[in-house]
Amino acid sequence: MDGDISRTEAASTLNDHAIAVQDGTIIALAPREQILADYPDAAHTELNNHILMPGLINAHNHTAMTLLRGMADDYPLMEWLEQHIWPAENRCISYDFVRDGTELGIAEMLLSGTTCFSDMYFFPDATAAVAEKLGMRAQINFPIFEMASAWAQNAEEYFDKGLALSDEYRYSPLINTAFGPHAPYTVSDSSFERIVMLAEEIDCNIHVHLHETAFEVASSIEQYGISPIARLNQLGALSPRTQAVHMTQLNTEDTKILLDTGASIIHCPTSNVKLASGYCPAADLLDQGVRVGLGTDGAASNNTLNLFETLRSAALLAKHQAADATALNASQALRMATLGGAEVLGIDDITGSITIGKQADMIAIDTHSPAMQPVHSAISQLVYTEAASAVSHVWIAGKIKVSNRQLVDIDLEALLAKSQWWRNTIAKVENT
Amino acid sequence: MDGDISRTEAASTLNDHAIAVQDGTIIALAPREQILADYPDAAHTELNNHILMPGLINAHNHTAMTLLRGMADDYPLMEWLEQHIWPAENRCISYDFVRDGTELGIAEMLLSGTTCFSDMYFFPDATAAVAEKLGMRAQINFPIFEMASAWAQNAEEYFDKGLALSDEYRYSPLINTAFGPHAPYTVSDSSFERIVMLAEEIDCNIHVHLHETAFEVASSIEQYGISPIARLNQLGALSPRTQAVHMTQLNTEDTKILLDTGASIIHCPTSNVKLASGYCPAADLLDQGVRVGLGTDGAASNNTLNLFETLRSAALLAKHQAADATALNASQALRMATLGGAEVLGIDDITGSITIGKQADMIAIDTHSPAMQPVHSAISQLVYTEAASAVSHVWIAGKIKVSNRQLVDIDLEALLAKSQWWRNTIAKVENT
Repeated sequence: MDGDISRTEAASTLNDHAIAVQDGTIIALAPREQILADYPDAAHTELNNHILMPGLINAHNHTAMTLLRGMADDYPLMEWLEQHIWPAENRCISYDFVRDGTELGIAEMLLSGTTCFSDMYFFPDATAAVAEKLGMRAQINFPIFEMASAWAQNAEEYFDKGLALSDEYRYSPLINTAFGPHAPYTVSDSSFERIVMLAEEIDCNIHVHLHETAFEVASSIEQYGISPIARLNQLGALSPRTQAVHMTQLNTEDTKILLDTGASIIHCPTSNVKLASGYCPAADLLDQGVRVGLGTDGAASNNTLNLFETLRSAALLAKHQAADATALNASQALRMATLGGAEVLGIDDITGSITIGKQADMIAIDTHSPAMQPVHSAISQLVYTEAASAVSHVWIAGKIKVSNRQLVDIDLEALLAKSQWWRNTIAKVENT
Repeated sequence: MDGDISRTEAASTLNDHAIAVQDGTIIALAPREQILADYPDAAHTELNNHILMPGLINAHNHTAMTLLRGMADDYPLMEWLEQHIWPAENRCISYDFVRDGTELGIAEMLLSGTTCFSDMYFFPDATAAVAEKLGMRAQINFPIFEMASAWAQNAEEYFDKGLALSDEYRYSPLINTAFGPHAPYTVSDSSFERIVMLAEEIDCNIHVHLHETAFEVASSIEQYGISPIARLNQLGALSPRTQAVHMTQLNTEDTKILLDTGASIIHCPTSNVKLASGYCPAADLLDQGVRVGLGTDGAASNNTLNLFETLRSAALLAKHQAADATALNASQALRMATLGGAEVLGIDDITGSITIGKQADMIAIDTHSPAMQPVHSAISQLVYTEAASAVSHVWIAGKIKVSNRQLVDIDLEALLAKSQWWRNTIAKVENT
């Protein structure tokens, strides 16, 4: 896949091409022989039977929740949160938990072809530190809540710590920070107003769970007389900076607000159907000009951080929902998981496609296996087969992160030992 | 997982256990130390950090269609069949095509944990021969059509060749044969009547695409005045022998017929949503006592033969469809993919669970990877994460088929070379 394609255009493929990278940036894309002739002294990686494509962008994750994977399945959202996840978090969460859970999640994302993620969780300082250390591109959304957590006692402290984090990473080439107001039902009007003002002042994005369930919408109408999205609009919290995550409930008025304000959406189909929260009409919104990215959501509600799985879910569910097999075709789905995600995160000038001048965030898919053969269509193979399990190489800003299916910067045995330690610790805490 | 569990009971797990196998049969299941003491001289495979479970049963496949994978996506069923798949089949299909496509598909199934499949395709003699040669358990459904194909000219010839095949495999320990009338819209009343009579006579199953689309049902009502399932019922073609594949359209009367006749269903959720054919209410039918198995369908409409993917799709779509996160829980979904499939195929006395006296059809899942950690719940990990890519060992009737993720009986390089040859041959034929 190469170049910036429009949201409706088919993804393009080139055979027997090569890419030249210098200082992390793509500087040339041409037939293999030409690149080899133009850069005779450059070190190069020869990949036969591979598809090279932009790295995937996982636009919504709670990465450290990998440590809670499989703890509580088959529950609806509010019961899952209130009776299982929040109590477990209250008992276990700490800087170390988030650091180790993030490392585990980044390992999983890298091995399945993701080169950039957007994260919202407690101790975002731990998440940011691990992402930067491992050379992973990320938007770190520091959480804003009214209620206390292990990270902060009240809204004031969330703001203070979040703004300090934002300052710390201001000049990071890999890490952007953004406001992460948890949801309309956990954040007050005054906090939203403060976020709007500060986001403008320090020029950063706003990432918020919005219209995840019908219950959320009904509660808002009961409490405020309007839907959550209408309330956020009244508070000035919707603009092209705003990333609305989930949006499974949308009436005509809500959609008009989305279109009028230029807010983008992040579609998390696998998490939404697992929690039976509903379905975001992502393909329709895309058609109407809304920027759409894809997210796995956290591993406690998905239960995998494999964005290729989410990408396939998005394509299949769009067809099912529209009763139209042509809905959200393979190219459109693939674009959502790459350039679409970059547009939502506001980083499409530097990543999301294989384009000269952009960062070399790329992955290679090995088609030399029974599950990937024959290759009648590379795009079809990437969307509808098991591409994640065929990821052989991953580069971020030109640096190799996965080589021949092995993590380059992460000590796998140490990582798995830590994960087992957390499993035992959590089980002990849960049973006391 | 061990033992025969009822359709509603939770799957059970045992820690630190071992299994003894003799002549392909499970003869003991007990704590590891006890088995090692009881069978001190037996060769054994030590698996730490693994989950051992029954092999998956893919109850509906057109295995050789792997060679058409990705040729035509994003089309509705009838356009996909009439304008893409059938023309391609007419030009390419042969004994060799089916032999090579089946080998490719079996390789993919083994590597993703399937130990038994049910297949309906042309040249079922080729499919049966490859399955038997590779030691794969299978129900081979020889097709019955009225229209000509490369395998047979008319209904008479389909019957003759199918019955000869049935004779040939009568005493095979691995291969069952069954009638495979393609669908109500491609098979005449008289052929169905003949199938009913013969199935009784030679004691075999009937495997038929049924109520795959609303169009199929509407056309039948127009032509026959009744739904396809009502028509098959009138012809006596529904009984516990009958495996109804798809059933995405079911009104109360249709459901009553299903319950009254004891026919089973095979749910193919991934293929159904990809073709936007509709959705089979599999969880409801299960609750009402219908036997339910799972199928991937062919790789031209899925596009993967990974039954773990179908298993997760089934669980997630059931929740979405019922707007209830508790619908089709992990244990129920896992049962559908194992013992449920065996019940549908009528082989639950010999396979489908890890039970003393049954055949040793088992797979091992390696949990020692970032995507599978931590293991709070083995059942959750098998259903909701990427278990297929963690399959390390596969045994069928006690014989090892996959060892440390490598195929034991299949020459991978030769297989992939054949697949590439077919890709080029098909592309050439398609372009002339």
